Amino acid sequence: MGSAAQLPHPFDPLTASEIEIAIAVVRKAHGTDVFFNVVTLHEPRKAEMTAWLAAPESAPRPKRIADVVVIAVGGKVFDGLVALDEPTIISWVVAEGQQPIITMEELQLVEHIARKDPKVIEQCVISGIPAEDMHKVFCDPWTIGYDERFGSSVRLQQALMYYRPDIDACQYQYPLDFCPIFDADKQQIIAIDIPKVRRPLSKAPSIDYHPAGVESRGGYRKNLKPINISQPEGVSFKVEGRELEWQNWKFHIGFSYREGIVLNNITFNDKGTVRPIFYRLSLAEMVVPYGNPEHPHQRKHALDQGEYGAGYMANSLSLGCDCKGAIHYLDAEFPTRAGGIRTIKNAICIHEEDAGILFKHTDFRDESVIVTRGRKLIVQQIFTAANYEYVVAWVFHQDGTIQPEIKLTGILNTYSMDPDEDTLGWGTQVYTGVNAHNHQHLFCLRVDANIDGANNTVYVNDAVPGEAAVGSPENFYGNAFYNKRTKLATTGEAITDYNGATSRTWEMCNPNKLNPYSKKPVSYKLVSREALTMLPKEGSLVWKRAAFARHAVHVTKYRDDQLWPAGRHVPQTSGEPSRGITEWIGDGSESIDNSDVVLWHTFGLTHFPAPEDFPIMPAEPMSLLLRPRNFFAGNPVMDVPPSYSSTPSQLLANGSGVLDATDKISKLAFPSNGTNGHTENGGSCCSKA
Amino acid sequence: MGSAAQLPHPFDPLTASEIEIAIAVVRKAHGTDVFFNVVTLHEPRKAEMTAWLAAPESAPRPKRIADVVVIAVGGKVFDGLVALDEPTIISWVVAEGQQPIITMEELQLVEHIARKDPKVIEQCVISGIPAEDMHKVFCDPWTIGYDERFGSSVRLQQALMYYRPDIDACQYQYPLDFCPIFDADKQQIIAIDIPKVRRPLSKAPSIDYHPAGVESRGGYRKNLKPINISQPEGVSFKVEGRELEWQNWKFHIGFSYREGIVLNNITFNDKGTVRPIFYRLSLAEMVVPYGNPEHPHQRKHALDQGEYGAGYMANSLSLGCDCKGAIHYLDAEFPTRAGGIRTIKNAICIHEEDAGILFKHTDFRDESVIVTRGRKLIVQQIFTAANYEYVVAWVFHQDGTIQPEIKLTGILNTYSMDPDEDTLGWGTQVYTGVNAHNHQHLFCLRVDANIDGANNTVYVNDAVPGEAAVGSPENFYGNAFYNKRTKLATTGEAITDYNGATSRTWEMCNPNKLNPYSKKPVSYKLVSREALTMLPKEGSLVWKRAAFARHAVHVTKYRDDQLWPAGRHVPQTSGEPSRGITEWIGDGSESIDNSDVVLWHTFGLTHFPAPEDFPIMPAEPMSLLLRPRNFFAGNPVMDVPPSYSSTPSQLLANGSGVLDATDKISKLAFPSNGTNGHTENGGSCCSKA
Repeated sequence: MGSAAQLPHPFDPLTASEIEIAIAVVRKAHGTDVFFNVVTLHEPRKAEMTAWLAAPESAPRPKRIADVVVIAVGGKVFDGLVALDEPTIISWVVAEGQQPIITMEELQLVEHIARKDPKVIEQCVISGIPAEDMHKVFCDPWTIGYDERFGSSVRLQQALMYYRPDIDACQYQYPLDFCPIFDADKQQIIAIDIPKVRRPLSKAPSIDYHPAGVESRGGYRKNLKPINISQPEGVSFKVEGRELEWQNWKFHIGFSYREGIVLNNITFNDKGTVRPIFYRLSLAEMVVPYGNPEHPHQRKHALDQGEYGAGYMANSLSLGCDCKGAIHYLDAEFPTRAGGIRTIKNAICIHEEDAGILFKHTDFRDESVIVTRGRKLIVQQIFTAANYEYVVAWVFHQDGTIQPEIKLTGILNTYSMDPDEDTLGWGTQVYTGVNAHNHQHLFCLRVDANIDGANNTVYVNDAVPGEAAVGSPENFYGNAFYNKRTKLATTGEAITDYNGATSRTWEMCNPNKLNPYSKKPVSYKLVSREALTMLPKEGSLVWKRAAFARHAVHVTKYRDDQLWPAGRHVPQTSGEPSRGITEWIGDGSESIDNSDVVLWHTFGLTHFPAPEDFPIMPAEPMSLLLRPRNFFAGNPVMDVPPSYSSTPSQLLANGSGVLDATDKISKLAFPSNGTNGHTENGGSCCSKA
Repeated sequence: MGSAAQLPHPFDPLTASEIEIAIAVVRKAHGTDVFFNVVTLHEPRKAEMTAWLAAPESAPRPKRIADVVVIAVGGKVFDGLVALDEPTIISWVVAEGQQPIITMEELQLVEHIARKDPKVIEQCVISGIPAEDMHKVFCDPWTIGYDERFGSSVRLQQALMYYRPDIDACQYQYPLDFCPIFDADKQQIIAIDIPKVRRPLSKAPSIDYHPAGVESRGGYRKNLKPINISQPEGVSFKVEGRELEWQNWKFHIGFSYREGIVLNNITFNDKGTVRPIFYRLSLAEMVVPYGNPEHPHQRKHALDQGEYGAGYMANSLSLGCDCKGAIHYLDAEFPTRAGGIRTIKNAICIHEEDAGILFKHTDFRDESVIVTRGRKLIVQQIFTAANYEYVVAWVFHQDGTIQPEIKLTGILNTYSMDPDEDTLGWGTQVYTGVNAHNHQHLFCLRVDANIDGANNTVYVNDAVPGEAAVGSPENFYGNAFYNKRTKLATTGEAITDYNGATSRTWEMCNPNKLNPYSKKPVSYKLVSREALTMLPKEGSLVWKRAAFARHAVHVTKYRDDQLWPAGRHVPQTSGEPSRGITEWIGDGSESIDNSDVVLWHTFGLTHFPAPEDFPIMPAEPMSLLLRPRNFFAGNPVMDVPPSYSSTPSQLLANGSGVLDATDKISKLAFPSNGTNGHTENGGSCCSKA
C-alpha cells in the first residue's frame, strides 16, 4: 500500500479503495447478491491506538479493519469485520431479528413502488387526486419506529404521503391523510394506515419558496448590499491529510456514515506542552419524537443518526454558498447498495470567522486600553433528513472553548387537517389545511474525555447560596454563595438532569492534576442551557427506544465499540430491552471515578410550530460549550495580537509607542456624512476623546 | 429653534445645546455653585407620544423637557424638570435622604484624595508599600452599596485598593486588604475597614497583558492571517437622524446616561403594513452581587446602571477596532459636574454582519436545493465599570427576531490572599496572592411590549407531556405533549421564575388579533435560557436593594417614568422599603390582562472565577431571543435573495433557469491542493454530484 506517509491515518475513514477491497472480499466469500448496507472504519481499539499515538515510530500501527453490514436475499442481516491488509474476513455473524440502517437508496425506492400500488392509488383517488396524477404523489419514507403489528423481523418503512400540484411545488403544503407500509424485502406496500376521519386534499393556493413563487408574490427584496469576506494572505490553519492545526489546537477530522463528523485526539498546545483534551467528540445519536398521540403519528420519532445516518444524508457543499470566505473541503466515500462507491464531494467544510472582541479593557482613569479581536474555526456539515436540514458546526475558539452548534432549517413535517379541525393542541395550523405537529429535537453529544490523560472524574456543579442563615455570623448579610461540586462516582449516580435554578454544569476533570493557582483539578466544563426534558412519558415507545434521551447526562466507563447510545442496529427496535446506554450502565454500580470515562449529553429543543416556520423555516440555532476551567494557568490568549493597545505611560508620553494595528479595511458606513465630524479612517483608535 | 425638520425627534437624547439651556436655566435660578449630576431627556408622556407618532403632522409635538439632578453644597439633592422651549423650570423638589448616581468625575477624585490621606498611607505602609510609593497606589471607587453604620444621608464611596509596581502593570494582581470610605461632600476619607487577618502586598511577579508583558513571555503569535470584511456597495441600512431602517425594521436609537442604548418605537413592515412590536427596549438595570460573606465584601454588589450609568461609562469606539466592516457611529452628550458638556464620540456603533445560512432545503430525491444566506444588524455599545467591560449588542435578524446579546470581558474584581489561605469556597486563587470572589451578573431587560398595539397579555409557556397515562385511549403510546399556556392576569401572578425542565418561555401577545392560520394571538416570545436564580438569600441586603432580580420575570402596567426597576436614585438605598418594581407591583392585584404592559426580565450568569480569566478575561457571551410566534402569516424572509436555487423542473431541463448568485469572493483555502480535485470556483453550486 505504498510508504507510511501514504498510509491512511488510523482514524481516517475508509478510502474508496479500502471500501472496494472489503466489498470484494465479502463478495468472494458470500456471493454477489448481497446488498451493502455499511462498509465503514472499524475504529482502532483505544489501547492500541493510544500506544501508537504516543510513539508512532515504535508502537505497532493499528490495523485497518472494515466494519461491514450486508443484507442478503430474504432479508438476512450479517455483521462482519474485514481485515484490509490481508485481506480477509475476521468475523461474520448473523444479526438475528435486527434491522440495520436505512440507506438513501432504500428511501428513494419507496415512492416509485407506492405510486404503482393499486391500494395506494385508491386512497389517492379517495383523497381527491385523479389516478392519472399519481406522478404528482410523493412520499417521504421514514423508518417505522416500531409497530407492534409487524415486529422487527420484516424490514419496513412508513410512507408519509404528499401531493405536489406541480413538480416544483413545496410538497409539505399538501399532505395526505393515509400512510402506506412498505416491505423492503418484498418491495411491496403491505398495509395502509387509514384514519377514521378522512381529510381530503387541501385546495389552498400553493405557497412556495422557490423563485417563481416569490416572484408571483412581488419578487425579491433589492435592498441587501453585499458583504465580502476574504483572506488575502490565506487561512491560519494547516491541514495534513485529515489532521488540522490551528491556534494551538490539533485534531483529526473523521467522518462516519452514522455520526457524520467525528473529531479525534483533540489536543491543545499549551506553551509548548501538547495537552490531550478529548479522545473523541461526535454527535452520536438523535431522536425527534412527535407529540400527536393519534395513531399512527406515534411512529414519527426518527432516530435520524441510527436509522438513516448523518453521514449518509450529508449534503455536498459548495463554495460561496454554504459558507463564505476561504474554505477547505473534505469528501466522504460510502459504498452503494450494489457494491459500488458513492462519493459525497465536499461533505465537510472548514473555515475561519472573525469572532468579535476577544478581550478588551479600558482604564477609566486615562482611557489607556487594549482591544483584541478573536477568531474562530468552524468544521461543519449539513445533512438533510427528509424534510429537515441540520447544520452541524464544531466551533473552536482560541481560548480553549469548543462550541458544538446546530442550526435547524428545512421544512416542517406536516399532516393534513380539515379547514375547521381542532388540532387539540398537538399541532398548529401553519397554513390552510396544514397541521404541523409538536415535536422535539433531542441530540446526544458523545464526549470521550481525555483531560490531561484518560483517567477523569465527572462532577455536577451547582451554584447555590451559602447554607448559613441571614444574620448568622457566617453569613451576616446573606450574600454568601458558592459552587457546590458533587462527584458522580458510579454510572448510576451519573444519571443526572439539568437544573436551571442552579445553572447546573458538568465538570470533566483530572483529579490527578491540580491547577497551580486554584489548586482545583484541571477540567473542562459542559455548559449547556438547551438541556431539555424528553416529553414522551416514562414507558412510552420513544422513552423505551431512545433511552439516552431520558436524562441530560449519562456517564459510562470507556469500552471499545460503545459508540451509539441507542444501539448498533436501531431501526425497528422495540425498546424491550432498551439498547445501548441502558445496557452499558446496567445496575449503575460501576465506578467511574478517576477512570477512562465517556459523557453522553442530551440537548435540543421543543418545537411548537408557528406559521413563521412555513413553508420553509428560518434557521434556529442552538449551541453549548465545552470550556476549560482551572485547565490553564492563566488566560491562554494573551499572545493574540491586539488591534490596539495603549498603556498609561505611553499616553503620558503623548502616545509614543502605542500599538496600532486597527483594521484598515473597515470604513465608515456614510463617509460623506459629516454629522459626527468623522473623516474616513481618521483619528487614532480608542484614544482619549 | 429652526424648522421642524431640524427639531430633535421627541425620542432623541438632549442635544448639547439643550443641555446647555437646561444648565443655564438652573444656574439662573439656583446659583452657580451646584454640581450637575444628570441633565437628560425627560421622556415624552406615552399618551402624547403615541398620538404624535400616529399623526406627526396634526397632533401636538411632545415638548422637549430636561430631567435634571443637581447636588448643592452640603450634599442637598434636587430633582428638577426644565421645559426647554420656554425655557423654564417646571418642577423642583428636594430628594431628601437620597443619593443620585455617581458620575465618572466623582469616581476619578477618590484616588487622589486617598493617596494623601495619612491613615491610608499608614495602611499602605503596613501592607508593605513605602510611603514614598503612594503614587503607585490606586483605587477603584465603588458605591458603598449600603452600610448601616453610615446610612444614606452622607454621600459615600468605598475605595477598593490596589498597587501597581509600575504604572502600566495590571493593578488587579496586587490588591490591598483594607478599604477606605470616602465622603464625597467633605472630600475626605472618613473611615477605613481593616480586616482582622492582615494580608501583606503580594510579591508575585507581574503577569501583564500589555505588549511588553507579552513580549517578555515570548511575544505574540504570528500565525493569524487577516480576515477582511467589506461592503463595496455600502450598507443596507438607512439612517435619518437617529431613526434607522433596515430589512423591514424601523426604530429610533436613543441613549441615556443610565441605560445606554434605548430603542424606541420598533416596528416591522410586514408586506406594506407597518406593525408595532415594542414601544421601548432597554437594559434597565443590573446588579453584580459578590458571594463572599466576610465584611466588607457584602458591599460589593454594584447596581452598575443605577449607580454609575451604562451611558456615563460608555467607551468611545473606533473604526476597525471594536467592530469590523462598514460602521455608522452615534455620539453621546452629557453634562459635566461643573456644568459644561462632555461628548463621548462614537458611543454607539451600528453595522451589518453575515449571519450564515438563513434557510436551506434539499430534496433528497433529485438534490434540487435552495440556500439563502442571512444578515444581521448590530447596534452596540461597550461600557467599562471599573474592572469589567460589558459589550451590549442589540442584534436584529431579518426574520423578525431581536437578540439582545451581552459579552463580558475586562478584568476580575480581586482581593488579596495569603499564599496558603483557604478561600473557603467564596473565591478562587486565580494567580499567586489573588482571590477572585464568586459573583453574579444579573441584568434586567425592560420590554415595553406593543405587539400590534398597546393592549397585550403575557402568558408563560411550558412544554409538558399530555396528562393521559401511557396505554390510555387518549395517549396509548405515551408520546403526547403540548404547549401549556398560563395567563398572567395580574402583576402578582406575573412574578415568575424560569423552569428549565419545561423549557419555559414567556409570550407577549395581542389577544385582540389572531393569526389567520394558527388562530392563536399574534405574539413575541421571550426565549431566555440564561435565566438564573439570584443567589443572595431572601432578606439579604442585595435581595432587598435589587428586588427586580428576585425573579426571572415581573410584569407591570405601563406608567410614565417607571423606567428603572431599582428606583430613581439607587446609591445607598437600604432596600427598606425596596424601591422600584416592588413599589409598582404593590399587593399584586392589579390586572395586566389585555392592557399596556411592561415585562421585566432578569437574566445573566454566575461566575466562579478560574485562572483562565486572569489577568484579563476572554469574552464570555450570553444572549436571549425575542421571537415572533404566530405574528406573521408565514416565513417573513422568503423574499431574501437566495445564493442558489434549483428546482426539480430546472434539473430535468439540465439546469436551465437555475438561479446562481453564489458569492464569487469566496475561495478555496488551498487552491493548489488537488487532493479533492477542486478547481478554484469550479463547478456550479449545490448541483447534483
